[in-house]
Amino acid sequence: MLSLQNMEFTASQIASFIDGKIIGDDNALITGVSPIESGETGHLSFIAQERFSHYLDTSNCSVLIVSENILTKNNYTQTIISVKDAYLSFQVLMNLYQEMQGRKEGVEDGASIHDTAVVGDKAYVGAFTYVSEKAKIGEGSQIYPQVYIGKGVKIGKNCKIDSGARIYDYCIIGDNCIIHSNTVIGGDGFGFQPTADGFKKIPQLGNVIIEDDVEIGSNCSIDRATIGSTIIGKGTKIDNLIQIAHNVKIGQNNVIASQTGIAGSTIIGDWNQIGGQVGIVGHIKIGNQVKIQAQSGVTSNVNDRETLYGSPAISYNDYLRSYVHFRNLPELVKRINNLENNSKDHTNE
Amino acid sequence: MLSLQNMEFTASQIASFIDGKIIGDDNALITGVSPIESGETGHLSFIAQERFSHYLDTSNCSVLIVSENILTKNNYTQTIISVKDAYLSFQVLMNLYQEMQGRKEGVEDGASIHDTAVVGDKAYVGAFTYVSEKAKIGEGSQIYPQVYIGKGVKIGKNCKIDSGARIYDYCIIGDNCIIHSNTVIGGDGFGFQPTADGFKKIPQLGNVIIEDDVEIGSNCSIDRATIGSTIIGKGTKIDNLIQIAHNVKIGQNNVIASQTGIAGSTIIGDWNQIGGQVGIVGHIKIGNQVKIQAQSGVTSNVNDRETLYGSPAISYNDYLRSYVHFRNLPELVKRINNLENNSKDHTNE
Amino acid sequence: MLSLQNMEFTASQIASFIDGKIIGDDNALITGVSPIESGETGHLSFIAQERFSHYLDTSNCSVLIVSENILTKNNYTQTIISVKDAYLSFQVLMNLYQEMQGRKEGVEDGASIHDTAVVGDKAYVGAFTYVSEKAKIGEGSQIYPQVYIGKGVKIGKNCKIDSGARIYDYCIIGDNCIIHSNTVIGGDGFGFQPTADGFKKIPQLGNVIIEDDVEIGSNCSIDRATIGSTIIGKGTKIDNLIQIAHNVKIGQNNVIASQTGIAGSTIIGDWNQIGGQVGIVGHIKIGNQVKIQAQSGVTSNVNDRETLYGSPAISYNDYLRSYVHFRNLPELVKRINNLENNSKDHTNE
Repeated sequence: MLSLQNMEFTASQIASFIDGKIIGDDNALITGVSPIESGETGHLSFIAQERFSHYLDTSNCSVLIVSENILTKNNYTQTIISVKDAYLSFQVLMNLYQEMQGRKEGVEDGASIHDTAVVGDKAYVGAFTYVSEKAKIGEGSQIYPQVYIGKGVKIGKNCKIDSGARIYDYCIIGDNCIIHSNTVIGGDGFGFQPTADGFKKIPQLGNVIIEDDVEIGSNCSIDRATIGSTIIGKGTKIDNLIQIAHNVKIGQNNVIASQTGIAGSTIIGDWNQIGGQVGIVGHIKIGNQVKIQAQSGVTSNVNDRETLYGSPAISYNDYLRSYVHFRNLPELVKRINNLENNSKDHTNE
Repeated sequence: MLSLQNMEFTASQIASFIDGKIIGDDNALITGVSPIESGETGHLSFIAQERFSHYLDTSNCSVLIVSENILTKNNYTQTIISVKDAYLSFQVLMNLYQEMQGRKEGVEDGASIHDTAVVGDKAYVGAFTYVSEKAKIGEGSQIYPQVYIGKGVKIGKNCKIDSGARIYDYCIIGDNCIIHSNTVIGGDGFGFQPTADGFKKIPQLGNVIIEDDVEIGSNCSIDRATIGSTIIGKGTKIDNLIQIAHNVKIGQNNVIASQTGIAGSTIIGDWNQIGGQVGIVGHIKIGNQVKIQAQSGVTSNVNDRETLYGSPAISYNDYLRSYVHFRNLPELVKRINNLENNSKDHTNE
Repeated sequence: MLSLQNMEFTASQIASFIDGKIIGDDNALITGVSPIESGETGHLSFIAQERFSHYLDTSNCSVLIVSENILTKNNYTQTIISVKDAYLSFQVLMNLYQEMQGRKEGVEDGASIHDTAVVGDKAYVGAFTYVSEKAKIGEGSQIYPQVYIGKGVKIGKNCKIDSGARIYDYCIIGDNCIIHSNTVIGGDGFGFQPTADGFKKIPQLGNVIIEDDVEIGSNCSIDRATIGSTIIGKGTKIDNLIQIAHNVKIGQNNVIASQTGIAGSTIIGDWNQIGGQVGIVGHIKIGNQVKIQAQSGVTSNVNDRETLYGSPAISYNDYLRSYVHFRNLPELVKRINNLENNSKDHTNE
């Protein structure tokens, strides 16, 4: 299994990053990272929980970061880096590693940048990326190749916009945002007036505002408002293949799983957890700290801290209770048949 | 809230476009448009219904287009443009505004156009767009940057093909069509023959035909036919993230909401309304003026004017009626238990 | 109906490819292919089943490939090519035709290929495609225009990567794979740690491994593993708009229909058939030869050869049996009401 390629560290270098104590070979060389259940020679992994302690002495990994309370011996097959909390230390390490990967700077040959566009200090713009008039790219932001940036778009500092993302005219993206490949920000909302001859397009002249610290996965569609703005609030995280319709307002620190769709003008509060393949109708309000189970269909307002399931969605517990009986309906029908037969017997008595 | 940036009109200019009467300052300057519930200084909005009349005198907007029957005074805080139907006038204005945005013309530096391709008069082809041999782009059509156009593709007049759309070999697009970013027209249909060694690809050698006045949202996948054509009929409007499989035929003036999928060879009539996240199986026929509720799963033929819900989908009213009892199943089961206990009592008498 | 444009063959050429006998005009000219139910003059079609035999003498096609057991006369309106199995012969012909379409070779003007990248013999790299450092493209592979290939990516032999596909750093693709337009391989998995201040990104440092003979449709999102690899096994076929989350492992020869989503770390065996719009939760195991009905929500482990339906998914037959009663719930409730009324009558006796 290949991962974290091209790294090369010694156990003692790793230990110094996370303030760990080495048991074994200071110079053990690490060239990659494996999950503990499929460790490879030359790789690093970690053990943070007692229930994985059987991998001590048995994993093929050369170096293991281990929580100190799990360690019972002075000597293991692998080189051990003993730390207080192995999970935390491993995260610190991975973050460090990612930062070391380096950022690019400057405008690559073959990018097309309008004369009136502004590219900030230490920003990167990749080849075949198109930046339209009066667009503004903030300091340190990384715009990968083949991105489309429309007129008057503003992108904040330290963003990462992946290859093939499209950001249409006048949309605004805050600082520290990540937008993955092939996501479309600011496509027209789906609005038509029916006439006898067919549907007449209603102009979609608003924009999309994405606040700071938002991450949006790949292949998402976030439509511009008819007038005003579609808004994704600070710190909200959106998975892949998600539909956000025109004039939707999403608050802060929401987590929305893959393939979910939110219809027009719906308003969503803060700290909600929305599962995958959920559908939410238009023009409703969802409060805060709500949990919506995967595949649910939400058709009316939702109060704070509710947990929902089903289509149309009802309380999670009620849905599961009813579903138990749903599965048992053939049996219930037999019981009703019996009761009716008995009742007839009585009547015939 | 930012919207309709960079416009700059006076109240009297606006009034002249829509034949309105001004109450207030002819020279009031408009630099943007807001929804009435979040108006901003210097912005234009409209009031078409009595229930929004409390925004008269209270909205921060500088100019309001108002239906004349709502007006009761000779003087308001804002400059008023009085018209017969404010909603209609506002739409007229937005359409005008969009048209004034201007179209581009000519082939941008960095586009790759095959010698045998034909680009019509007043058409625009953006940078990094690839036009293959014998492709034909009609008069006035706007092909944005980074689009892929395959061999022998024909695109009609006055179309707009957004950045990142892919139109594969021999597909045909009519006049006045809009295809949004990252939509794929003419990818291979999903057809394989099972063999003992695995699945063998069945060549997908047909195409996709998109008739006039069709709009297709972003990130859609519309597959080419195995042989013959996948067809999207005149005036049909398709939202984002939608799957149309090989050999599907869709009629005229349908509206299909986001994330719906239609499986292979299904035939759909005219004027149907299909909700979001609907699944329709392959090889069935759906009539005309059918309504399919969001998240439904349609598994058999549908007659004209039916309304459906559920998975598998049944009549909308029947589904809702049954769902009320579904929610109440725990209570029903208690009642059955009681009846059985009573019945035993009788038996034991 | 337009299809298979620009071909031009005589009946005798076609017959020689598939070892058929001609009844009629050896020199009948074919310029396209039609489905039998919408045949056109000058086109070829086929009849492999008795139930389509009424198209003999009535189809507008000029040449028909027909299974010999269906033929009863020595003379038909159309030129007939008689073969043992018309369906098989037609497939052979379509495969031949597709191969004749030709492959491109070489690097097109305007592609951006890093000095350290390696492009194999007879491979094609289209304009505006970006190939990053140390990437490797195998012999004969066709990389269409506007593709993004990240650092250290390895693509095997004879692959086809369609326009707009994105393959992120260190992902590995085997031989004979097809990846359709705008699919994203190796985007970050959706992993965050909740903190009081918001969600903190967990670095996603693994990759995606796609084994030989895999086909992946358009607009799919296949996320890289957190550490280790997300794996798509040999011969598996994936339709459009599908989500595969981080650390999922899919075995060999699976068929997964459009708009299905598989959540993180789930493990799927071999030869499974997964319908469209299915949701599969994370961290479960699905065996082999399982069939999952469209729109199902799978929430727990699945044994070999099970067939599932519903959300949450249960046995297909059980779901349908219960659903019959679900549709009938209003009637069942009436029967319970009656029983209760009768029971009261008895009690009141």
